[in-house]
Amino acid sequence: MSENFNELDARLWPATATRNSNGVLTVGGVSADDLVKDFGTPLFVIDEQDVRTRARDYMDAFTTSDVPTTVFYASKAFLATKVAKWVADEGLFIDVCTEGELEVALRAGVDPAKILFHGNNKSVAELEKAVRVGVGRIVVDSFVEIERLNHIALAACCTQQVLIRLTVGVEAHTHDFIATAHEDQKFGFSVASGSALNAAGQVIAAEGLSLLGLHSHIGSQIFDANGFEVAAHRVIQLAVHIRDTFDFVVSEINLGGGMGIAYEHDDDPLNVQEMAKSLRDIVVAECHRVTFPVPHLAVEPGRAIIGPAGVTIYEVGTIKDVAISDSQTRRYISVDGGMSDNIRTALYDAHYTAALASRTTTAVGAQSRVVGKHCESGDIVIRDAVLPADISPGDLLAVAATGAYCRAMSNNYNYIARPAVVAVSHGKVEVILRRETLDDVLFLDPGAQTP
Amino acid sequence: MSENFNELDARLWPATATRNSNGVLTVGGVSADDLVKDFGTPLFVIDEQDVRTRARDYMDAFTTSDVPTTVFYASKAFLATKVAKWVADEGLFIDVCTEGELEVALRAGVDPAKILFHGNNKSVAELEKAVRVGVGRIVVDSFVEIERLNHIALAACCTQQVLIRLTVGVEAHTHDFIATAHEDQKFGFSVASGSALNAAGQVIAAEGLSLLGLHSHIGSQIFDANGFEVAAHRVIQLAVHIRDTFDFVVSEINLGGGMGIAYEHDDDPLNVQEMAKSLRDIVVAECHRVTFPVPHLAVEPGRAIIGPAGVTIYEVGTIKDVAISDSQTRRYISVDGGMSDNIRTALYDAHYTAALASRTTTAVGAQSRVVGKHCESGDIVIRDAVLPADISPGDLLAVAATGAYCRAMSNNYNYIARPAVVAVSHGKVEVILRRETLDDVLFLDPGAQTP
Repeated sequence: MSENFNELDARLWPATATRNSNGVLTVGGVSADDLVKDFGTPLFVIDEQDVRTRARDYMDAFTTSDVPTTVFYASKAFLATKVAKWVADEGLFIDVCTEGELEVALRAGVDPAKILFHGNNKSVAELEKAVRVGVGRIVVDSFVEIERLNHIALAACCTQQVLIRLTVGVEAHTHDFIATAHEDQKFGFSVASGSALNAAGQVIAAEGLSLLGLHSHIGSQIFDANGFEVAAHRVIQLAVHIRDTFDFVVSEINLGGGMGIAYEHDDDPLNVQEMAKSLRDIVVAECHRVTFPVPHLAVEPGRAIIGPAGVTIYEVGTIKDVAISDSQTRRYISVDGGMSDNIRTALYDAHYTAALASRTTTAVGAQSRVVGKHCESGDIVIRDAVLPADISPGDLLAVAATGAYCRAMSNNYNYIARPAVVAVSHGKVEVILRRETLDDVLFLDPGAQTP
Repeated sequence: MSENFNELDARLWPATATRNSNGVLTVGGVSADDLVKDFGTPLFVIDEQDVRTRARDYMDAFTTSDVPTTVFYASKAFLATKVAKWVADEGLFIDVCTEGELEVALRAGVDPAKILFHGNNKSVAELEKAVRVGVGRIVVDSFVEIERLNHIALAACCTQQVLIRLTVGVEAHTHDFIATAHEDQKFGFSVASGSALNAAGQVIAAEGLSLLGLHSHIGSQIFDANGFEVAAHRVIQLAVHIRDTFDFVVSEINLGGGMGIAYEHDDDPLNVQEMAKSLRDIVVAECHRVTFPVPHLAVEPGRAIIGPAGVTIYEVGTIKDVAISDSQTRRYISVDGGMSDNIRTALYDAHYTAALASRTTTAVGAQSRVVGKHCESGDIVIRDAVLPADISPGDLLAVAATGAYCRAMSNNYNYIARPAVVAVSHGKVEVILRRETLDDVLFLDPGAQTP
């Protein structure tokens, strides 16, 4: 246990993360203690330059080729008007899956033509709104939706461009993927069963719809391109089948998102250049093999853009050493947030990395568990971490790579107000989402309103 | 697959749940279709009479004995001012674990003396507020907190009554419990290690604190009293140890909550009368055995009061049959909510029971999965359910026993606004928490405000 607790592994922490001369974590040129003084804890801090660089890296990696590619930011990972503006600035399109996400993108000024609308159960109102505002692509997900959307488009006197969401029988997750004929999930039309081909026929026949392409999404936290190879093979096979059956050539293939990021030192996802090259090579090779024109390609990174750019800063509240056997203890470090601002540990058994943010240390390590303040024993932020043995109440603790699916899934369990999200860049701070107040949280309760 | 889909199992559905002459589910004398017309879907519906009856049952079961007992409503299960008023009306005290929960109870007019404050990491501000408003009991959870609270109480010139949270090495869950020496969790002082005895000594010596009693909470969804027997044995053993060491007799023993409810037909929790009798018998027998004066008893039901009284009403949006093998299909029924209003299925692998709410049916059953509308394949409400094969888009589907830990843990994932919660009673409807609007959800984003 002689780790250097003061180092910040560049693969885990935001690009501009460093320690200032006082040893305090700084991101975007702003120190954690200054941020906390102004905005309190817990606090989400997003490194704007890091987000922009990652977005640009995706653009560069995918658009330098002879295979034209659109990069969609998967907004479910984390969305706010500022984030939508950043990614749009950098040339990305954006994918949304509800009226709410659509509205944020629109209020951010994103061109509706650059928005793609996902979802297994979009409401009629959502479809109507999407058509009305001129969303560029809607990914249809069921036969009833194809009908609905066709009626809505016809009523609006327009032709809506759609992609067909496929289930290709590939399920990818981190270091592995499985390929089966069938896929037991709510999304998409099964390729194996013939549903997808039927859906294509129905869309082609629908006067209000224009079939742009096919969409496949194989999972999340994907660390290499193997799963995409099987998926692309099956998608392109279907494209050939559609051409042969309906004399119709789809022009866009969207391989979805799921590109993984590092949460711990040992995580080793493929970098974006290699991933882009692999995906292109796979698609081009497959198209050549079956003599199909290389389509326009699309991908949907979300976590890979915003995840590593975000950190959460907590204040340590209580420390407790718990005997877990006659010879072993575990240090419980309680922070002032928890499963309300990061449910991923409890929900997915996700792993995170923490660092002492308010100072450096020369302490040895202690086997620790970082827990929240909720009234639930499953309220764990980091299950197993070796952390400096001198961490004390009042210290600031930073958790890396919390930009995606933390604030986005945050809740008010135990009536805890949700943290602010601030963007830092070149020494400046901007509020992306302001901190909830207790009055905000009580706002929906008619009996809680003070006169 | 010849179930009667029109029956409503009384152990799963609210006490007043029935079907009206049109076959529509009614609760509290109000039909699901009327509720949905006025309040939309998804909608949480709470049967007020059922909550009050369950609260009263707890009072009756526990207070008819010669062992005086206080029943605390565990507000983390679900809290709003109206619910706090109901349970206070029925004679229950209330337990809270954050400033937010405390504030709701206070705004509801709950007597602070009847409030108990829990938590492994209460902030200094929370402790100060609790002392200032005169919270009756604070459960101390760490040595640093004992010190903090003592300082705060002394500064406020008052003596704060406290209980000591113990870890007794019993972990209970549904049909089973385990008993060990150590307990690997964030809450409490270990009895086995001697921490709890030291904590008692520290509290007794603290001039600002008055040691009222000991607190133990062994888990959740407990279906019988066996785990409580081991816990009570260890708590009372510690009480004897405290008496012998410090010449101090604790006067209250709080055995916590965790009393289970039925989520599915086969769930068979002990009823409250039997549970109360068992707990009393256990405590009395144990006290007699070690010649210790029978203390004041306390319990903390939360889910058992509010859980079965609540249902969620969804509208079905899309239906999809998915081949899961060459011979089997699964019907995916998508509703207009999901993991934002009920994360328990994904988080705890919780099971629920659903019924067609908008009509009766004579259909056969279909192997189904009820899923939400979020952009995530894990967004499942009920993993395995046999549901009427004629369920169609537009039907209302009710899910039973969602009163606890659903709205309380709800989130805005995918920018989905949270459902309203309404109380129904004798044909009348009152809004407990109004529905969030999209503007509410966007309120924290400075860039999303329309001028």
